[in-house]
Amino acid sequence: MNIREEARKMKLDAPLLAASSNETRNEALRLIGEALAAHKEEIFAANAQDCADAEKNGIAPAVMKRLLFNDAKLDDVCRGIEQLISLPDPIGRALLKRELDTDLVLTRISVPIGVIGVIFEARPDALVQISTLCLKSGNCAILKGGKETARTNRVLFSIIREAAVRAGLPASCLLQAELHNEIDELLQCEKDVDLLIPRGSNQFVQYIMNNTKIPVMGHADGICHIYVDKEADQEMAARVILDAKTQYTAACNAVETILIHRDIAQAFLPRLADAFREADVKLRGTREAADLLAASAAANTGSIEIMEEEDFHTEYLDLIASVKVVADIEEAIDHINRYGSHHTDAILTRDDEAAARFLQMVDSAGVYRNCSTRFADGFRYGFGAEVGISTSKLHARGPVGLDGLVTYKYTLCGSGQIVGDYAAGRSSFHFRDL
Amino acid sequence: MNIREEARKMKLDAPLLAASSNETRNEALRLIGEALAAHKEEIFAANAQDCADAEKNGIAPAVMKRLLFNDAKLDDVCRGIEQLISLPDPIGRALLKRELDTDLVLTRISVPIGVIGVIFEARPDALVQISTLCLKSGNCAILKGGKETARTNRVLFSIIREAAVRAGLPASCLLQAELHNEIDELLQCEKDVDLLIPRGSNQFVQYIMNNTKIPVMGHADGICHIYVDKEADQEMAARVILDAKTQYTAACNAVETILIHRDIAQAFLPRLADAFREADVKLRGTREAADLLAASAAANTGSIEIMEEEDFHTEYLDLIASVKVVADIEEAIDHINRYGSHHTDAILTRDDEAAARFLQMVDSAGVYRNCSTRFADGFRYGFGAEVGISTSKLHARGPVGLDGLVTYKYTLCGSGQIVGDYAAGRSSFHFRDL
Repeated sequence: MNIREEARKMKLDAPLLAASSNETRNEALRLIGEALAAHKEEIFAANAQDCADAEKNGIAPAVMKRLLFNDAKLDDVCRGIEQLISLPDPIGRALLKRELDTDLVLTRISVPIGVIGVIFEARPDALVQISTLCLKSGNCAILKGGKETARTNRVLFSIIREAAVRAGLPASCLLQAELHNEIDELLQCEKDVDLLIPRGSNQFVQYIMNNTKIPVMGHADGICHIYVDKEADQEMAARVILDAKTQYTAACNAVETILIHRDIAQAFLPRLADAFREADVKLRGTREAADLLAASAAANTGSIEIMEEEDFHTEYLDLIASVKVVADIEEAIDHINRYGSHHTDAILTRDDEAAARFLQMVDSAGVYRNCSTRFADGFRYGFGAEVGISTSKLHARGPVGLDGLVTYKYTLCGSGQIVGDYAAGRSSFHFRDL
Repeated sequence: MNIREEARKMKLDAPLLAASSNETRNEALRLIGEALAAHKEEIFAANAQDCADAEKNGIAPAVMKRLLFNDAKLDDVCRGIEQLISLPDPIGRALLKRELDTDLVLTRISVPIGVIGVIFEARPDALVQISTLCLKSGNCAILKGGKETARTNRVLFSIIREAAVRAGLPASCLLQAELHNEIDELLQCEKDVDLLIPRGSNQFVQYIMNNTKIPVMGHADGICHIYVDKEADQEMAARVILDAKTQYTAACNAVETILIHRDIAQAFLPRLADAFREADVKLRGTREAADLLAASAAANTGSIEIMEEEDFHTEYLDLIASVKVVADIEEAIDHINRYGSHHTDAILTRDDEAAARFLQMVDSAGVYRNCSTRFADGFRYGFGAEVGISTSKLHARGPVGLDGLVTYKYTLCGSGQIVGDYAAGRSSFHFRDL
């Protein structure tokens, strides 16, 4: 398959999908849900083969869990599809309607982005989630899944596309890329692909970002911080930090660095070290933190490995955390803005003023007070499904749902108006919002 | 000056500007307006020197007009500043407020983008417009103006920065780059500069886009089309096309290609050629168009130079237009989506159904019916000033005003909630919009 040619064709057909009705797109989603359920044995059989191969190839158990597509995963994606159907049409909405002059009406109207390339590692359920989000929002999608679940992806894709076409959507609305070299071809389609969404490891996303002129939505690093203010409830702090670090260690919104106000470091650090020791979390930190802990009365709370300042750029995705003692909230904010990845950062404090300052000054997609960084997620925000979490500041930031898959265009309808008349003062604008 | 170091410093100070009040930012704008008026002789003197040098260097008269900064330009920018002051604060607005669970509230809040690099050729008034737009929206800006008006830019910049600081904004909110090699340095500041806005020629913008990892907002090409449908009012069509081509030939929203429905080509083409001949506009086109015109009764309407299909990618910015006869509206739409630059395209027709189809299927920032493409402009849309026109589909599309200079972040305020409780079913979300 020639990805460039296919992308070109898809781009020219994209307006057909953009012009489809919400009813047709919802009908496609309904048929997709039905077909997935009807063909589940076929899907599970393909997935069993993928998983058997993966096991033979010595894939780690943590990854194995992500490859699996079983009844529970099928239920999840089908529930997601039902939720998508129930959401209002994200396209065709008039976001602004303004009469510029008599019989000259400007409308800003939401439209699909166009052609979206999605490249993801593992997780076959992501294929279903992302393709249905794209269809609901009227976007064409080129999907490239991980090779570990190639058989599962192929079955899922053909079921999804067949159902979409049966509902009346154009056959060119979905395309599957299967070969690894097709990724590089796809990265060069800047004329025809409007957006790339990569989902996978830091290095994988970084590679995509560094090798294409197509705008990329997503995140590479997820270096999240929790700042324990001097006015923190220490019992709550230990519980929230433990959740943020251990509830799902491999997640991008898991915490990596704990900043502790100097005034409570002596009391809180041994407590934290104790909780972390029980959860098998290793601590790394500055010399001050290490000395403080070593000098603490409770000598059996373990120790802190001393790290370099530059190491605060590290995303562990593992049972390891960095710790630093800071002089005040300003130092905490400065550290986060300097070493963070602008993903999700939290302050734990009872002090409203400190919290307000932190929420305002920390330059991240998510800034939290008194709760776990693990809440950064489209489902937990009530967006239904998400295509990923964006740390970019343009277009969409944080968890991205349907809203992030649309753009707008301006239509202007007149009755022969020319600019020359306005330039010469024969006509003038009156700007009246309708 | 080391641009990278300065950008790093600016990035770390940016939250200070983001946290400033609307009153302080408006006060800065007021002081800027006052100071520009108070120092006008100084500005005009610097500009006179710039213009004298430019004339000596043989700058074209059309460009000379853009270099000039006189009383009329000063009035324009001061009026623009007053308008900006009157606009509501674009930052700090709650775009979404949702209770996820008891005492766990999510807010999507508008915030400045951060650090914006603006690189523009000529037009010193653009320096004033863009820097005041950035300040109103709480963004730090690095400004690099054209070398032809280096003296004028220097005076304007120092007046603007001094007034901003006097109002209480941080000194690092504005930075001027003056050396050409500083552009390349700026292009490499992807860690600290959040957005680049280039304003200038096609090649200039293309160079910026091809040599940076920073997101770029703007447009290179402006290949705008007008499609004359078979149901067009021919008298209106000739008038609108003439305005779109000749009212300001060098503008990005001037029309370059005229598509004519075959059913009316025989009648309309001679009429168009006649109007164009009077306005000194040269016609290029397909063989069919040339033959049609040659065979027309009115032989004195001039001729059409035959062009290659690939030439439809050309932006003339001159008194030249391309013309093509099309079989139907589908061919017109397909031509525009294939050869256009997704800037602004118009249909001229009395047929509501054809118009609706065109507005929906043409994939451009602006899609018009029965009016000139020259209306694509922030002022004419009622946005007050604009930083430019975007043909990108992400973030902002079309003329970009204050709205396009803000992004959002999510704040989440809780009372110790952890994700583990929701994963284990001990807690559950109830999603209630506030």
